[in-house]
Amino acid sequence: MADITTILQQYKDGSLTLDAAQQQLQTAVSLADAASVEDMGFANIDLQRKERCGFPEVVYCAGKTIDQSVQILTLLMQQYDNVIGTRADKAVYDRLVPQFPDVQYHELARMVYQRKDTHNDNGDRTIAVVTAGTSDIPVAEEAALTAEIMGNVVERIYDVGVAGIHRLLRRADDIRKANVVVVVAGMEGALASVVGGLVNKPVIAVPTSIGYGANFHGLSALLAMLNSCAAGVSVVNIDNGFGAGRLADMINRMR
Amino acid sequence: MADITTILQQYKDGSLTLDAAQQQLQTAVSLADAASVEDMGFANIDLQRKERCGFPEVVYCAGKTIDQSVQILTLLMQQYDNVIGTRADKAVYDRLVPQFPDVQYHELARMVYQRKDTHNDNGDRTIAVVTAGTSDIPVAEEAALTAEIMGNVVERIYDVGVAGIHRLLRRADDIRKANVVVVVAGMEGALASVVGGLVNKPVIAVPTSIGYGANFHGLSALLAMLNSCAAGVSVVNIDNGFGAGRLADMINRMR
Amino acid sequence: MADITTILQQYKDGSLTLDAAQQQLQTAVSLADAASVEDMGFANIDLQRKERCGFPEVVYCAGKTIDQSVQILTLLMQQYDNVIGTRADKAVYDRLVPQFPDVQYHELARMVYQRKDTHNDNGDRTIAVVTAGTSDIPVAEEAALTAEIMGNVVERIYDVGVAGIHRLLRRADDIRKANVVVVVAGMEGALASVVGGLVNKPVIAVPTSIGYGANFHGLSALLAMLNSCAAGVSVVNIDNGFGAGRLADMINRMR
Amino acid sequence: MADITTILQQYKDGSLTLDAAQQQLQTAVSLADAASVEDMGFANIDLQRKERCGFPEVVYCAGKTIDQSVQILTLLMQQYDNVIGTRADKAVYDRLVPQFPDVQYHELARMVYQRKDTHNDNGDRTIAVVTAGTSDIPVAEEAALTAEIMGNVVERIYDVGVAGIHRLLRRADDIRKANVVVVVAGMEGALASVVGGLVNKPVIAVPTSIGYGANFHGLSALLAMLNSCAAGVSVVNIDNGFGAGRLADMINRMR
Amino acid sequence: MADITTILQQYKDGSLTLDAAQQQLQTAVSLADAASVEDMGFANIDLQRKERCGFPEVVYCAGKTIDQSVQILTLLMQQYDNVIGTRADKAVYDRLVPQFPDVQYHELARMVYQRKDTHNDNGDRTIAVVTAGTSDIPVAEEAALTAEIMGNVVERIYDVGVAGIHRLLRRADDIRKANVVVVVAGMEGALASVVGGLVNKPVIAVPTSIGYGANFHGLSALLAMLNSCAAGVSVVNIDNGFGAGRLADMINRMR
Amino acid sequence: MADITTILQQYKDGSLTLDAAQQQLQTAVSLADAASVEDMGFANIDLQRKERCGFPEVVYCAGKTIDQSVQILTLLMQQYDNVIGTRADKAVYDRLVPQFPDVQYHELARMVYQRKDTHNDNGDRTIAVVTAGTSDIPVAEEAALTAEIMGNVVERIYDVGVAGIHRLLRRADDIRKANVVVVVAGMEGALASVVGGLVNKPVIAVPTSIGYGANFHGLSALLAMLNSCAAGVSVVNIDNGFGAGRLADMINRMR
Amino acid sequence: MADITTILQQYKDGSLTLDAAQQQLQTAVSLADAASVEDMGFANIDLQRKERCGFPEVVYCAGKTIDQSVQILTLLMQQYDNVIGTRADKAVYDRLVPQFPDVQYHELARMVYQRKDTHNDNGDRTIAVVTAGTSDIPVAEEAALTAEIMGNVVERIYDVGVAGIHRLLRRADDIRKANVVVVVAGMEGALASVVGGLVNKPVIAVPTSIGYGANFHGLSALLAMLNSCAAGVSVVNIDNGFGAGRLADMINRMR
Amino acid sequence: MADITTILQQYKDGSLTLDAAQQQLQTAVSLADAASVEDMGFANIDLQRKERCGFPEVVYCAGKTIDQSVQILTLLMQQYDNVIGTRADKAVYDRLVPQFPDVQYHELARMVYQRKDTHNDNGDRTIAVVTAGTSDIPVAEEAALTAEIMGNVVERIYDVGVAGIHRLLRRADDIRKANVVVVVAGMEGALASVVGGLVNKPVIAVPTSIGYGANFHGLSALLAMLNSCAAGVSVVNIDNGFGAGRLADMINRMR
Repeated sequence: MADITTILQQYKDGSLTLDAAQQQLQTAVSLADAASVEDMGFANIDLQRKERCGFPEVVYCAGKTIDQSVQILTLLMQQYDNVIGTRADKAVYDRLVPQFPDVQYHELARMVYQRKDTHNDNGDRTIAVVTAGTSDIPVAEEAALTAEIMGNVVERIYDVGVAGIHRLLRRADDIRKANVVVVVAGMEGALASVVGGLVNKPVIAVPTSIGYGANFHGLSALLAMLNSCAAGVSVVNIDNGFGAGRLADMINRMR
Repeated sequence: MADITTILQQYKDGSLTLDAAQQQLQTAVSLADAASVEDMGFANIDLQRKERCGFPEVVYCAGKTIDQSVQILTLLMQQYDNVIGTRADKAVYDRLVPQFPDVQYHELARMVYQRKDTHNDNGDRTIAVVTAGTSDIPVAEEAALTAEIMGNVVERIYDVGVAGIHRLLRRADDIRKANVVVVVAGMEGALASVVGGLVNKPVIAVPTSIGYGANFHGLSALLAMLNSCAAGVSVVNIDNGFGAGRLADMINRMR
Repeated sequence: MADITTILQQYKDGSLTLDAAQQQLQTAVSLADAASVEDMGFANIDLQRKERCGFPEVVYCAGKTIDQSVQILTLLMQQYDNVIGTRADKAVYDRLVPQFPDVQYHELARMVYQRKDTHNDNGDRTIAVVTAGTSDIPVAEEAALTAEIMGNVVERIYDVGVAGIHRLLRRADDIRKANVVVVVAGMEGALASVVGGLVNKPVIAVPTSIGYGANFHGLSALLAMLNSCAAGVSVVNIDNGFGAGRLADMINRMR
Repeated sequence: MADITTILQQYKDGSLTLDAAQQQLQTAVSLADAASVEDMGFANIDLQRKERCGFPEVVYCAGKTIDQSVQILTLLMQQYDNVIGTRADKAVYDRLVPQFPDVQYHELARMVYQRKDTHNDNGDRTIAVVTAGTSDIPVAEEAALTAEIMGNVVERIYDVGVAGIHRLLRRADDIRKANVVVVVAGMEGALASVVGGLVNKPVIAVPTSIGYGANFHGLSALLAMLNSCAAGVSVVNIDNGFGAGRLADMINRMR
Repeated sequence: MADITTILQQYKDGSLTLDAAQQQLQTAVSLADAASVEDMGFANIDLQRKERCGFPEVVYCAGKTIDQSVQILTLLMQQYDNVIGTRADKAVYDRLVPQFPDVQYHELARMVYQRKDTHNDNGDRTIAVVTAGTSDIPVAEEAALTAEIMGNVVERIYDVGVAGIHRLLRRADDIRKANVVVVVAGMEGALASVVGGLVNKPVIAVPTSIGYGANFHGLSALLAMLNSCAAGVSVVNIDNGFGAGRLADMINRMR
Repeated sequence: MADITTILQQYKDGSLTLDAAQQQLQTAVSLADAASVEDMGFANIDLQRKERCGFPEVVYCAGKTIDQSVQILTLLMQQYDNVIGTRADKAVYDRLVPQFPDVQYHELARMVYQRKDTHNDNGDRTIAVVTAGTSDIPVAEEAALTAEIMGNVVERIYDVGVAGIHRLLRRADDIRKANVVVVVAGMEGALASVVGGLVNKPVIAVPTSIGYGANFHGLSALLAMLNSCAAGVSVVNIDNGFGAGRLADMINRMR
Repeated sequence: MADITTILQQYKDGSLTLDAAQQQLQTAVSLADAASVEDMGFANIDLQRKERCGFPEVVYCAGKTIDQSVQILTLLMQQYDNVIGTRADKAVYDRLVPQFPDVQYHELARMVYQRKDTHNDNGDRTIAVVTAGTSDIPVAEEAALTAEIMGNVVERIYDVGVAGIHRLLRRADDIRKANVVVVVAGMEGALASVVGGLVNKPVIAVPTSIGYGANFHGLSALLAMLNSCAAGVSVVNIDNGFGAGRLADMINRMR
Repeated sequence: MADITTILQQYKDGSLTLDAAQQQLQTAVSLADAASVEDMGFANIDLQRKERCGFPEVVYCAGKTIDQSVQILTLLMQQYDNVIGTRADKAVYDRLVPQFPDVQYHELARMVYQRKDTHNDNGDRTIAVVTAGTSDIPVAEEAALTAEIMGNVVERIYDVGVAGIHRLLRRADDIRKANVVVVVAGMEGALASVVGGLVNKPVIAVPTSIGYGANFHGLSALLAMLNSCAAGVSVVNIDNGFGAGRLADMINRMR
């Protein structure tokens, strides 16, 4: 299929009629958009994501075979300094590290990543990542690490759940200093509402599946956070630390 | 059927054999237990409840016809000073008041009641009834009024939800002074956990159906309260102000 | 109870011992925090909210009696130029308008509000409010109006659901120009993901209860939005236009 | 903004450089796609739907104001012979009929429609619409009428639920003669599986909200149909007669 | 504590007053009822169940330790000919068989049992156990075996699900001959309704967890069966073959 | 289409070949089965139901128009002595009574019925209908009335819920005398298990939607009854009094 | 039992009366239908399925023992060229391959199959199988392989989810060329709606359980697809690739 | 940061102005509250919990790494006599026991604990822990052990579920003697209501996940208990033995 330039020239030199040129342009324009996609058969990798969105495509490794994850990450790591794979088996890391010596693996957060560019894009604007309990730390680390790799300073404030409100209040000033706050909590998820009432900044709430019984794998915290009576709170999927970190980065970049 | 005394005497005077006496006693003992039930056909009213439990049977009027509620409450009001009907249509009150001039109706709480005995059984041991918002007040009043009619002093602390934690903290001392705390909250129900962390007394959490969307008619608050990370918190049914008031009275009576 | 100044002076002039001064200071500091709360019995109005958060308390009228809503809004309208009541019955407006001639009522959005200060705080940074269908407009208007009253310029882009993707794509540039995007959609809620993939700005997704059957009052859109495969999407409660508008304002203010 | 023709000509005559022409073409092509959309502010009507899909846009009236529905249907009825509005209040019909004397209203199916073209597109290929009970007829009529207006012959076979299997078996041959079968059933929804086992044609199952208790507004029939052990059965939303009729038309058109 | 006889005699001989005799009789009668319970600390075994209900207590082994199951079954096997343990690990059988050589284990049904008395109590009245598929057989065997051990003749009719209705119809006469019918089905559970329409005998429906996806571990079949449009169908818990077999026995015994 | 007799005769007299006779017989046999169905277009009435099942078809009026219900009931009342319509609007009764003077309407149970034959089929075998509370009576009456019209003696035992176990125990002997027990209960539905443990007869449990909050329209009672630890308990749909009455009749008929 | 021919002849030669002949014919006709069923005790195999439906019975291996699956597949593979077993353990393949050298196993799709007849029944009419992500491929392969074995040409278009809409649009023409489209997506399942809006052909949507948290094992995608605002979309069970492939084949065969 | 004493003195000696003193006091008071928290990075241990609440912080070990649990418990065991870790892997015990020879592990209850102080705080006021079945014992032991370690006498009454009500009634007096009752039950959870009706003391209901099918991991018991018709019953999370034990202790301490 001819590209746009060719069509314009063929129209100019008369080898295409006006009608034919119009027709062919429709498809050509679509294909121009698509030029940035690397089609691997089992995956279509978007190679202009960084230009468009500031960060290359992030690979969600769960549900993919080790081999698929490795192939996709290889493609990305060859082209970009900073690359992230989430929910990754350690085997993915083991397969990548011989070729990419900078690749790292965070066991708790289950992230495999390459962070060659450690430049801090957002100056002194910190993102606070706050957890209700110790058990929420793996999800919090996924959020924190994501934000850091994307160029943010992260302040970790862990285990300050509402059952002992003074644990939270003594850190209130640290939380208020942040530009964006990520709140990670399971069980009753009340921390998001309390933090939402303390700060005047956007709060990204991440319900976790921590808890048992009527927690129903994170449903209790999810519903609580969606029903938060505090303004400025929005919610991402259960255990979705990555999504929270990515959104926090996006908000933190706003000028 | 002969009663226990008769059987014993008939056995003593020889008109009953040992076997016959044993047989008849089984039924007689059961019937003795049952003597206290007034069978109205559509309802069995327990007339020893006050002796057994300290307060006469309380009538749940929803699902009953106006006529059934009136008949049952008439029976009880004739025998007891303090009587409660919950979830009552005002029509029940209108039908009762000509005969029982002391009967009262609380519109918000939808309670019809007679409170001739206003004695305070529990001295200075107060029950705190705390709400997250103004919209939770009808349920809270059902709890508070129940506890008062049963002989308790109630401290009402309304609209102190967690989104503005200082609203709650300024009342913390008042809450800590109470012997039992009833927390009434809808939406994310976080108030129960925060109060549970502030006090060293039993907290009875009442989820309300206040809220919308993913509140799912009280489910969000219910699950949050069941998953409370604070110790000493237990939960009653959604919007069950009466149950909370009754349990608070029961705990407040303990010596 | 003495205030902080008094205690300090009494300690200085010797009328308080060190111990007594320390003790009394604990309470005095708490009360200072609480000074800004107007306790109406059925409601505690936070009178420093504007100072702390940039906008006075917003009144959620559902579940409150007309009378309660009117009393609270009266208090706020006397003190602030811009005031919002959501989920308000028109009767609230009718009761307020004689005293506050500037008060307005938006029937579709069910909002009662006073907007004396029409200053645009955020310059040319627009917030796009996008709906999937015509039926989503009431929720979208709640979001848009909220954001406008708080000082933002809003671009409304309605009825561009994914079933005819070209309807959306022809508005893609308008959406990309916005600083924050609010996506309001019921049914399958797919619009949030598609918009999330088109823009490099935070997307606030508002599921609506529009639909029927297996929509389950907004559950389908809610779950879809929470599971969005697009980065930068977070979710507020079903039909919670106000929450989205408030959060969009908060993000739009960030510098 | 220049259209494609203009850009081509300007490039040909040299008033546009190659680069400028390429740039402007991107937008022009998008706008060409969008030319067919009538933007009414509250709705974007797709005016090439009939060309693209064989039938003009169908208006889902629930959630729209009467006025919005009337405006949209007026626009469509002016341009097309056959037009459908579903879930329509009779008031919509009342407002349309003075201007469009051919408009009709089906009370049970809650459809307002104009059917000037009664041509039968699909010859003797019938669509069978089968219901389990009499109460399922409103949904079935929505499906049947939709298919008829779109140019199909419909065979209605009503009240042949599985509890009396001979009622169904005596109509088995009629059902087998159809080219596509729509099965409409509430309660346990078993009819879809039994019909699916009788025929060798696609079965479109429509769960209805008919039933009570553990029917949960159509959930029982929906789940049953999704779990059908018969091959060739697929499912549309609860009570979605229109969707089934539209899909049946689409399949029936295949050659 | 004195027993009834002693009290009667002591009252007769004057060593007890009337009042004292009355008092003591209350407790004595209760204890007489309780005499048949073997209290093992971790379990209270009812040793008059066979007299009262026709079959000794059946042991649900899931959730018990191997040791607990073995101790309880040992106690029962020593006293009764026919004894059943359900959801039993094979280890329970292995521990019992040295001492009770008649004990058997049915791997598919996960039942351990002793059946020394093979007398057929119900003559030629058969119980039909019907399954929709092959995968439902383990649950069906639990039902069939239970009914057989309790003295019934069972007719097994397996894999006659509705997707091929002729598979079922060719066995219709066999099913109609039964006195009670147990229908075991997963997926859409439609078989219960179809069988319910074919027979004039009680149908006990057992939903199974067989299926996947929107089956939600048996929920689809459960809801379908509860909503059966056929009369005479009642439902037991998901996968509860034992419950169905026990109830079938109970109905089959009725004269 | 020729009937079976004609085909046999035509084959005998040679006007049909063996092959043709075989072919035609297939259809003729099916049609013979179907002869008993009265096809009203919107309903197929089974006119051999009484012969097959002992009672004519029962009309579920909910979801049908008044007119449809009246037409179907008219057809049945002309042919049978005893006829039942459930979930019927009183308007159905009002339309029927001029033509059928024996027709009756039970307001609480919402049943319209004709009971010309008051013969008691089952002698002294009673069916006990037991309710937990007064509010469960409408559902219980639907069950009781159904069983009575079908020829059974019903013993009503109302308001004996488990919260006052002695209310139940004093009626234990009455319940034990019954041949089948229907237990109707909302809220926690515990009555089914307790009754199931008291009797050695089949217990049909009917969960009701009585209750509030976490009752979720009968779900709590439904799940409780399905999980009953007592043997011999099976469950029908929420509020399905008719289904329980019909099944009780069927079991009570067994000899 | 005599067959139809015998009865006809006996009637002709007078050894059967008309009445007796009629009676026996009823059963004989039913049995003729059933002649094609192979009763294996644990399974009833339908041996006329290919004649009736165009393809032999497909074996769902989950829930069956290895042995049962092998026996059923052996029976089918002996009689038919093309045979499919789904959700099969590799052990089934291992047991079959010695006897049936053509048998194949697709690990990702978990299908065991024999495809001796590779004839393409449907000419150039392709079925497009489209996935949102790489993780959806196993389900997609089950659909694609099923359709291929049944005689269709399949175009696989993988990893074109909506978060990067241009990935999809560049393949839009390929999708539009297909005669039927199968859309396989997890998470928010939005792809079905977007594809439904792009094409004028039936779309079969397959929700997958890919995702986490509020995905609830495929519920989010399922609900989204059922609520699709695009016409022509119907849904099969979660992860039911086979069902989609079978239905696509059925639609693709229509002439 | 200066402490309160310093500030007071600095103000007294004039080195701080009134304004500066006021400002600094705000923070100083907050920090005084926080002094009792030991910040371990991954956990904030509250070291004044015993003073405030009567018992040191209890460690919920699930979701924490072995290492985290050990570090936290080490800190607590060094400071307190009685310490509890719940949901603990035996590995936690194995790591602690060398250093703390008094530490114990209860396998069934999965608790690790140190109980050096065996003083009985509450005299003869017993807490009854009652289970419906043997399978509920692990949860019951978590409750009982918790209450014992906190200084209470516990009466264990196991396996007295309602299916054999006499098993319960024979223990009724023992239960009535208790000051607080913990009822632990799975399946239909009916025991809570029956016990609630027998006693005049607070009943803490603990639903367990024991059961199968429509038990849905404890949901059936949970809903039943929340809907209990007995007064004085409140509910904790599914399987939350610890919460029940802690609350029972709290109530039992009330004077």
